[in-house]
Amino acid sequence: MSKLSPMSQPFALEYRPPQPATPVVDAAVGGYTPPLDINQLLAPVRTGLQQVETKIKTVDESVFAPLASAFLELIGSGGKRLRPALALLAAAIDPATIDAQTSARVVALAAAVEMLHTSTLVHDDVIDGALLRRGAPTLNATWNRGSTILAGNFMFGTAAHFSAETHNPRVIRLFADTLRIIVDGELRQLAARHQFDQAKESYYERIYAKTASLFCAATEGAAILAGLPEAAIQQLRDYGYHLGMAFQIVDDILDFTGDERTLGKPAGSDLRQGTLTLPFFYHLQQQREPARLLQQLEEAQAQLDDGEPAAWQTLVDETVAQARNGDAIVAAQREAEHFLAHARAQLHGFPDNVYKQAMLGLCDFVVQRTY
Amino acid sequence: MSKLSPMSQPFALEYRPPQPATPVVDAAVGGYTPPLDINQLLAPVRTGLQQVETKIKTVDESVFAPLASAFLELIGSGGKRLRPALALLAAAIDPATIDAQTSARVVALAAAVEMLHTSTLVHDDVIDGALLRRGAPTLNATWNRGSTILAGNFMFGTAAHFSAETHNPRVIRLFADTLRIIVDGELRQLAARHQFDQAKESYYERIYAKTASLFCAATEGAAILAGLPEAAIQQLRDYGYHLGMAFQIVDDILDFTGDERTLGKPAGSDLRQGTLTLPFFYHLQQQREPARLLQQLEEAQAQLDDGEPAAWQTLVDETVAQARNGDAIVAAQREAEHFLAHARAQLHGFPDNVYKQAMLGLCDFVVQRTY
Repeated sequence: MSKLSPMSQPFALEYRPPQPATPVVDAAVGGYTPPLDINQLLAPVRTGLQQVETKIKTVDESVFAPLASAFLELIGSGGKRLRPALALLAAAIDPATIDAQTSARVVALAAAVEMLHTSTLVHDDVIDGALLRRGAPTLNATWNRGSTILAGNFMFGTAAHFSAETHNPRVIRLFADTLRIIVDGELRQLAARHQFDQAKESYYERIYAKTASLFCAATEGAAILAGLPEAAIQQLRDYGYHLGMAFQIVDDILDFTGDERTLGKPAGSDLRQGTLTLPFFYHLQQQREPARLLQQLEEAQAQLDDGEPAAWQTLVDETVAQARNGDAIVAAQREAEHFLAHARAQLHGFPDNVYKQAMLGLCDFVVQRTY
Repeated sequence: MSKLSPMSQPFALEYRPPQPATPVVDAAVGGYTPPLDINQLLAPVRTGLQQVETKIKTVDESVFAPLASAFLELIGSGGKRLRPALALLAAAIDPATIDAQTSARVVALAAAVEMLHTSTLVHDDVIDGALLRRGAPTLNATWNRGSTILAGNFMFGTAAHFSAETHNPRVIRLFADTLRIIVDGELRQLAARHQFDQAKESYYERIYAKTASLFCAATEGAAILAGLPEAAIQQLRDYGYHLGMAFQIVDDILDFTGDERTLGKPAGSDLRQGTLTLPFFYHLQQQREPARLLQQLEEAQAQLDDGEPAAWQTLVDETVAQARNGDAIVAAQREAEHFLAHARAQLHGFPDNVYKQAMLGLCDFVVQRTY
């Protein structure tokens, strides 16, 4: 078995303490900056995204009908298709190398990435017994557990099939290993729930595994398929890594600052299920007596385990409210900005075309979600 | 998406009504035939099987420790490694074509097949909430549900990684599609539970999907890797198909005739959970009033749904007892023999070496389990 090497990527550790942020916020100082429109940003790869959409929504008629409809419902409720877009952009940044066959293979990779992403969401819902995702009832709530697990597995099979269509063993292995890294990270996250004395480092390991690893796979895989030199492959992988880290940090900020209407789930749901994220770590760091908060959490959780959830719920609500009104959110935003600065830096040296502009724009888009 | 085509294989339909059986039983008439020893049968591929064993039991040290131990426990409790053996045998039947690189790729395929098989067992346990498998506590009973689902997913990722090591896009696609066929079949089986008026044909579809499809993938994939001509690939695929169908029929017979000690689960567990198998269909066919039995089952199940399981349990126990004492088991055995005769016929024309002898021996071994 090859090395999974989630540690071979530089984690955020070397970048702290966060530096002052620059881009979007500063640009907005002089006057109103209209929010970036994701559809406009991704216009250069619109055709490719349409091909991906067709590919992931095609189900053979021999598939068991209830499975086919569940599959289409799940894949159809997808979000911005950010991950496939990353693959398409990374493959196109050096357009000289793209012929029709390569293009079809990049579309296959992009479809595989989105399919894998959706399959992990489906299983997450079973694991959490979640009732809401993106504001719509999860499959888990309407179908039973077994069918949901199997629908997720069908998506794995479909993702694996698409990855095989890249005809590139290195990309196929990268893809398979990414699934293992994601699973490994999800298990670490499950195991770390309600472990309040964990090191902040474990947070970076977890978000690499659960989010950034697939961003990397999209950009690295596409660069391999496009036949780019190794140095460029590595740069595009690192772009995906840093963008993915920032993306997850932003998600974790939104879990503190958003509301049920925008999130599709109640604010503070990470902490409520015992998952510690970056805003929590900064909030803890800013406490005069961090040990006291940790002790309160442990006591409240002990009561929760005894079937008395009141103290836990109150403490979570208070902690979330304090964190969103304090400096924790700003510190986390700065850290996201810092990752994005590194993402942008990876694009130096690539030709200044619409694809590169879109990849730079995505960095602005990611952090914009928090303001 | 390519055609899944579970229907492209000839199902058993064309072979019924069952013909009188010949091989093992007849051979035993004249005197005592010692039972076949599976380890002895598989001796020609012993080295390959050891390589498979090493491969599937190697876990990178970067993997989360609790995941690594669960993984090793699950893969270690495996059975006879029949599926990897099939791949190794099919690749070796024409030994002229095997070089060291091909050999390593066949081992990768064999490992992928066993890993996929184990991962589906792990998820089956979550779906069924099963407490016993092979007489040992299932992972599901000791770990929680989420960890078990994720351990299964990690195995999928590992299987996909191994399949990528074959470096053959056709084999990788075959492998990915087999996962989809298995899942499709499992969902059909879940949906068909407690549907008593189903056609017997659906049974053949289900056992192709859940069992024979992976047997086919092992032999077909190995034949492709060995560079055999298309006609030979198809013959070896058909061998795997027919052997797999017989194997599952035998499993379904044992569920009627075995006891908790040999099965690791109570006899009649298929029918108890509402899954109809071949012995049941023959038992039904032999009833003077089949409609009456169907009505009894429906009524008992209605009571079960109302929280009164007594009538259901009694009826299942009676039905299983009657079926095992009647002609249903013999009829099912004959059908398994018939599939095995077709499996053997596929080997005509291959050189008469130890690999072919082992593949013929496996046909005897499969049905021997029922006597």
